[in-house]
Amino acid sequence: MIKGVNLGNWLVLEKWMSPELFAGTSAEDESHLCAELSEVAKHERFKVHRDAYITDRDFAYLARRGIELVRIPVPFFIFGGYEPYVGCIEYLDKAFRWAERYKLKILIDLHTVPEGQNGFDNGGICGVCKWHKNPEHVEFALEVLERLTIRYRDRKSFWGIQPLNEPISQELWDLIDLPNRYPSVDKDAAAGSEPVPTEFLKGFYKEAYRRIRAQSDDVTIVFHDGFRIREWIGFFTEPDFRNIVVDTHLYLMMHTMAAGDGDLNDYLRYIENDFESTISEMSRHFPLMVGEWCLNTMSKKDAALTDNERRDYYRRLAAAQLRAWEPAVGWCYWSYKLQVDAPELDTWDMGKTIEQGYLPQDLSNAPEAKHP
Amino acid sequence: MIKGVNLGNWLVLEKWMSPELFAGTSAEDESHLCAELSEVAKHERFKVHRDAYITDRDFAYLARRGIELVRIPVPFFIFGGYEPYVGCIEYLDKAFRWAERYKLKILIDLHTVPEGQNGFDNGGICGVCKWHKNPEHVEFALEVLERLTIRYRDRKSFWGIQPLNEPISQELWDLIDLPNRYPSVDKDAAAGSEPVPTEFLKGFYKEAYRRIRAQSDDVTIVFHDGFRIREWIGFFTEPDFRNIVVDTHLYLMMHTMAAGDGDLNDYLRYIENDFESTISEMSRHFPLMVGEWCLNTMSKKDAALTDNERRDYYRRLAAAQLRAWEPAVGWCYWSYKLQVDAPELDTWDMGKTIEQGYLPQDLSNAPEAKHP
Repeated sequence: MIKGVNLGNWLVLEKWMSPELFAGTSAEDESHLCAELSEVAKHERFKVHRDAYITDRDFAYLARRGIELVRIPVPFFIFGGYEPYVGCIEYLDKAFRWAERYKLKILIDLHTVPEGQNGFDNGGICGVCKWHKNPEHVEFALEVLERLTIRYRDRKSFWGIQPLNEPISQELWDLIDLPNRYPSVDKDAAAGSEPVPTEFLKGFYKEAYRRIRAQSDDVTIVFHDGFRIREWIGFFTEPDFRNIVVDTHLYLMMHTMAAGDGDLNDYLRYIENDFESTISEMSRHFPLMVGEWCLNTMSKKDAALTDNERRDYYRRLAAAQLRAWEPAVGWCYWSYKLQVDAPELDTWDMGKTIEQGYLPQDLSNAPEAKHP
Repeated sequence: MIKGVNLGNWLVLEKWMSPELFAGTSAEDESHLCAELSEVAKHERFKVHRDAYITDRDFAYLARRGIELVRIPVPFFIFGGYEPYVGCIEYLDKAFRWAERYKLKILIDLHTVPEGQNGFDNGGICGVCKWHKNPEHVEFALEVLERLTIRYRDRKSFWGIQPLNEPISQELWDLIDLPNRYPSVDKDAAAGSEPVPTEFLKGFYKEAYRRIRAQSDDVTIVFHDGFRIREWIGFFTEPDFRNIVVDTHLYLMMHTMAAGDGDLNDYLRYIENDFESTISEMSRHFPLMVGEWCLNTMSKKDAALTDNERRDYYRRLAAAQLRAWEPAVGWCYWSYKLQVDAPELDTWDMGKTIEQGYLPQDLSNAPEAKHP
C-alpha cells in the first residue's frame, strides 16, 4: 500500500485553494488569470507562488509523516512557449531533487490539456471541454508525456506518469450540470464542449501507453477512470498493458451532493457501501489507486460540533476510508496544502488535517496507525 | 519556560533566507529591493510572498509541536505610507487571528528603524546605522510602537512588544568589522554610521517603556540587550520598569567566528561555559529570554558526518542549549522557516530541524522531551 498526497495548486492553480493569487482580477481559472494580468505581474505572481508554495521542507515533512509518494499535477504548458501561460518545468526538476533527498516517489499527473478535458476550474479553463475534438491538441499532450518520460526516466524517484486527469464522463457532466457549475466566460470558446467519449478515451489511452512505454520500460502508467470505472474491466490487459494502475477519485462530497448534508453514520455507510465495495470489486480487475480523496464532506452539519466531537468525527471518517482503500495499491490525499483563511476547508489540507489530529502523525502503518 | 519561534523573513526580508525574492535585482537588503523593482513587480512580489510564507496552517503546526509564542519581526513602515516600502499591518492582523485560533501568544518585535540600528541586512539597509542620530527617526519608531500597542492591547494573544531588535554595540561592530561585512551600496547614505551608544539606548528604552506602558498596563515589554548584557544590571528596576524582559541572542556561530570550525565537544563546552553561565548569572538580575538561537554552528566540519552521526550531533547541541536556557523565562528559535535549496542551512529552519529529528516533535516538555 503506497501512501501518497497530491501537491495540488502548486503548478496547476485552483482559485478556491488560494484565492489571493487571483486578487485584482475577475478570473475564475488559470487561463483567464494569465490573460488578465500584465506581463510583469503575471511573471512575478507565478514565480513567487511557485517558489514559496512547495519547497524542500515540505518533502521533509511528508517523509517524516510516512508519506511515500507525491502526485504532482502539471499543466500541458509545463515546458513553456505557450502563450499566455508561464512554463514551470524547473519546479518539477526541483521536486525530483527533493524527492531523492527524502526518498519519496513522484507520480507526474498531466492535469490540464489545451481546450480542456473536463471543463472544471482545475482543468485550467472553466466550461471548456473540447480537447479531444482537436487532433493537434491530442498530439500536443502526447508529446508532453513523451518529453516528461524522457526527462525523468533515469531518476530514481520517478514512480509513475498519468496521461490525463479526470476526463469527464456524460454521467458526471449531467449530474453536476457542468455548463452551469463551471460557466465559461467566453461562449465562443465553450461552444462545442461535451464530455470525453469512452471510445475516444480508449484510443487515447492506448496511444499514450504506447508512446510512454516506448520511452520507459519500467515507469508505472496510471490511467484515470474518467468517472466510468466499469468501462475498464477487460481493457487494461496483458500483454497490451504492463505495469499500469487505474486511478479513481472518491470524495465524500459526492454523497452530500446526491443526498444532502449527512450525519457521521451516513458517511460511514457510504464509505462501506460505495467506496469499499467499489475498491474491493474493481481491485480484482486491475491494480487500483485512489488518487484523490479527503475527509471533507461539504456537509454544513459539522459546524455544530465541539472540538472534541469534530476530532472524533474526522478520525472515524479517516479510519473508515483508510480501511476501504486496503485492497488498492495506493492512495493520495487531496491535497497537501491550501492557502486559505477558511476553517471549513481545513480537511482539504492534509498538513492541517494531520496537525489537528484527524489523521495520524505517522501514516506509515495506516490504517493501523494509532493517534498519540 | 515559554517556548517560542521567530517568524523571520516574513514581514522583514533577509536575502539569505529566501534568495529568490531578490531575483533579477542586485539588492542585498529590502530597502534596495524596493528601490530597484518597478511598482507593479514590487507589489506583486511582496503580496504573494506575504500571503504564502506564513499562513494559518503554520500556526496549527507550531501549536501541535508545543510552541507557545511567536516572535514576529516587523518593519518600521508596517503601517504603510513610507516610500519605497510596502506596508504590511494586515498580515500582523491575520497573525493575531491565527494565534487566537491556536492559542499561541505573539511578541511583536520592531526589527528595523529608519536609517538603521545595526547596519545588518536584517536591519533593512546594509551598512547604514544612524537612526539614533536623527530625533525624527527616533520619534517615528516610538509612534509605531504606540500605534501597535493600541491596535492589539485588547487582544488575548498579545503577549509582548519589543521596542528594537539588536541595536549594535561598539564591541560587535569592531568584532565583525561591520562596514566590510555589510557593505553599503551608497557611501553617502552610510556616512556617519556608528554603533548605537549605550547612553542613547538607555534613554530610548526609558522613553519607549513610558510610551508603551501608557497605552497598556499589562503587555510585556522586551528589551534587546544590544550585545552588552552587563550594561543592564541595575537598570531595569522597579518601580521604573514593571513586567519587562531582557532579550539576548545566543548563536553558536559566534564561537566559530572567534575560534574557527569546532568539533561537537567545542560547542558543548561553549554552551556550558558561555551560554549557560551567562543565562544563569544574568537571570538573577532581570527576567531573561533567549529571543534568538539555533542549532547552526556555521562550521563546515559537520558536512563529513553520516546521517546518523549528524542526527546525534544536532540532538546533543539541542539538548545542551535547551538545558542552558532553563533559568530564562523563555526562548525563541531563529527561525521557523527558510526558503532555500541549501542543506547546510537546514538547522536555521526550525520546521526542518524538527522533521529531521534534531529537535523533538513535541517541545512542550523540553528540555526533557524525548525523541520517539
